[in-house]
Amino acid sequence: MSLFDFFKKSRHNSAATAKERLQIIVAHQRNQSSQPQFLETMKQEILEVVKKYFAIDLDDIKADISHEGETEMLELNINLHNKEIPQAAPASSGDENTA
Amino acid sequence: MSLFDFFKKSRHNSAATAKERLQIIVAHQRNQSSQPQFLETMKQEILEVVKKYFAIDLDDIKADISHEGETEMLELNINLHNKEIPQAAPASSGDENTA
Repeated sequence: MSLFDFFKKSRHNSAATAKERLQIIVAHQRNQSSQPQFLETMKQEILEVVKKYFAIDLDDIKADISHEGETEMLELNINLHNKEIPQAAPASSGDENTA
Repeated sequence: MSLFDFFKKSRHNSAATAKERLQIIVAHQRNQSSQPQFLETMKQEILEVVKKYFAIDLDDIKADISHEGETEMLELNINLHNKEIPQAAPASSGDENTA
């Protein structure tokens, strides 16, 4: 099963199949010494990034954080309802190294 | 298959199975009128967020952007090598609404 299949499969399960949506998954495979759960804070910062591209509000966002063994996972499902912000997104600050 | 299974499965395929790693997937289901591909720019901004939590450099990051039908997908695999940044992440700017 490819990631695309996975994404399509989760679309059919979601009650409101918005014409346009964004799904963000952050999976952190930890070892014992790693930081306490940081995904809650990172979730807010990722949403700030998304808001530069789409005018979204709270009820467009479904967020879940779950754990299994040494893995912690954040799943964000965002209904977009064609709410793009037309102007190009601002260049990210500090362009010294780009991946 | 759950998301956790998917994440574990992709771990075995990756050559260097780092003890600690982060996988970020952004899937955008578009309609015709939506913005041109913005995932390249969003990728940089998400990496800026990750760098607040982990001291990572370019060769720790594997980034892929792919398309299938109306879906565009960014996949980031980041080897962490226990490179946490100890201090707590700065609170995100503008806390007026939290999801």
